[in-house]
Amino acid sequence: MGDAKVTDTVAVVGTGLVGRAWSMVFARAGLRVKMFDPVAGAAEQALARIEDSLPELQSAALLSGQSASEVRSRLGICTTLEETLRDICHVQESAPERVEVKRELYARMDTLADPEVVLASSTSGIPASDFTAELRHRHRCLVAHPINPPHIIPLVELVPAPWTDPDSVERTHALLLRVGQRPIRLHHEVKGFVVNRLQGALLSEAFRLVEDGVCSSADLDSAIADGLGLRWSFMGPFETIDLNSASGIKGYCEMLGDLYYELAREQADPRRWSAALVEALDQQRRAALPLAALQERSQWRDKRLARLVVDKQRADDDLGT
Amino acid sequence: MGDAKVTDTVAVVGTGLVGRAWSMVFARAGLRVKMFDPVAGAAEQALARIEDSLPELQSAALLSGQSASEVRSRLGICTTLEETLRDICHVQESAPERVEVKRELYARMDTLADPEVVLASSTSGIPASDFTAELRHRHRCLVAHPINPPHIIPLVELVPAPWTDPDSVERTHALLLRVGQRPIRLHHEVKGFVVNRLQGALLSEAFRLVEDGVCSSADLDSAIADGLGLRWSFMGPFETIDLNSASGIKGYCEMLGDLYYELAREQADPRRWSAALVEALDQQRRAALPLAALQERSQWRDKRLARLVVDKQRADDDLGT
Repeated sequence: MGDAKVTDTVAVVGTGLVGRAWSMVFARAGLRVKMFDPVAGAAEQALARIEDSLPELQSAALLSGQSASEVRSRLGICTTLEETLRDICHVQESAPERVEVKRELYARMDTLADPEVVLASSTSGIPASDFTAELRHRHRCLVAHPINPPHIIPLVELVPAPWTDPDSVERTHALLLRVGQRPIRLHHEVKGFVVNRLQGALLSEAFRLVEDGVCSSADLDSAIADGLGLRWSFMGPFETIDLNSASGIKGYCEMLGDLYYELAREQADPRRWSAALVEALDQQRRAALPLAALQERSQWRDKRLARLVVDKQRADDDLGT
Repeated sequence: MGDAKVTDTVAVVGTGLVGRAWSMVFARAGLRVKMFDPVAGAAEQALARIEDSLPELQSAALLSGQSASEVRSRLGICTTLEETLRDICHVQESAPERVEVKRELYARMDTLADPEVVLASSTSGIPASDFTAELRHRHRCLVAHPINPPHIIPLVELVPAPWTDPDSVERTHALLLRVGQRPIRLHHEVKGFVVNRLQGALLSEAFRLVEDGVCSSADLDSAIADGLGLRWSFMGPFETIDLNSASGIKGYCEMLGDLYYELAREQADPRRWSAALVEALDQQRRAALPLAALQERSQWRDKRLARLVVDKQRADDDLGT
């Protein structure tokens, strides 16, 4: 997971779930991390929770062979934004998802941080153009949206505003590769970015199939988890179809393009998720998993994800990527 | 992978890629398999290829601890359809994907097989109603569509025709569970069944994003393979969103339903995959993987899938499902 030398310092602004995970990502890669949260005590609490989780990550082989205390030693708390943004190479902002909060925060950060320092937002849905338009150094702002939890799932979407300097994108891309993440580049802003658009396309069809009585939600989940999702955990959809025809993606599209176009026409039927449908799905899910067990199940998910990522790394090493 | 006692015999009709895989699925679960292909020499060739692949499956831990020769001993070739369909409990048909071929074949099979024996088709897209309508015992016909390769990927879609007897669905469901597959039930026929509808929904958006210049096809593949696809390899989309809100799927839908509806409206834009787009994608894929290397890469995919399935089984055992 990247170079373990301590050569740089990053600022993590906002230390909730996402900020905590980013702190671990940077620290385990050898960077020093300055953590800041404007809510009194929040950064201290975040650091305590990180101290709790680092030994687990160590035993899950997610600290690149380093000890929990070694990684912990690179994390520090700052009490002011001024101090946080001094002598750093990158800001990863994970503040609440409210545009007015981000606007005010970026106005302050733009004044305080050296103009060469990239300000990257973890926002899952607010384009950078919504909160950086008025900034003097808006060229160094962009979105770097991770998937939860980012210390386990490597993907990060880089989404520039119309005024983002390509160099700021490239430096963020290089930094994220260095810390072991997998950044992808969006060429312009688009609603939902790429990840949630792809998830949304799948969800729309999943809700439609259950609403139309084609199958149960449990069987739909199985269609992915015991079927399509297996290949997608190490190959994307384009490579998948490329390997499904002896003449590659071209042959596949010739063979199945008409079918998929017919399906796309049937699927061009945007529906609100009705209260009745959501209620029915909720009942099915609550029968499978009571609400009281949800948090424990989320911890199970993270353990499974951590195991998967380590198994995948071994398969990469043994069988190639 | 099921009970290893030899208590039953199944017929595999059509011994191409899919029929071969089915033969291994049934045989490693302890069933005797009668293989038949109307093309002279085809079944013999299929059996020879199975003999080649069984040792690999054995070393990949995909034979439930049995030896290749033990599994091989349960496979036999029949030279006539009459002989094939005698004294069996299930027919798995994997003939060519042409409706007239299936119509003729099912007319013969319906006459030859005991009326209680289920005739299940591996077809990926032809509904059973298209080739069983005229049969005397059409109540015992259905689609049992696997994902390639079925000896590695467990999912099977069961799709009844309007006249399929629920008992035939239930017996097929039970048989497939017994041999270690994961059958799901569709309640009625629908174009593309569930798996290809879900894959189609994702592909439509993937093609749209590349066509609109949002990201490269390689970055789109990464969005799945390094991001969304990780959770989907052990949890379906409904469980995924259920765990992404403290109040479960209901809270998630309240929080994000409007966004996904807006996305669904933007995505309600069915497009043919244009020749220019397919050409561009083909160039990107051929730069990543020359056509001459495609077959080797498909073998790599199957090795990765086999490893994933075994790793997943271990994670199931260690961490729970």
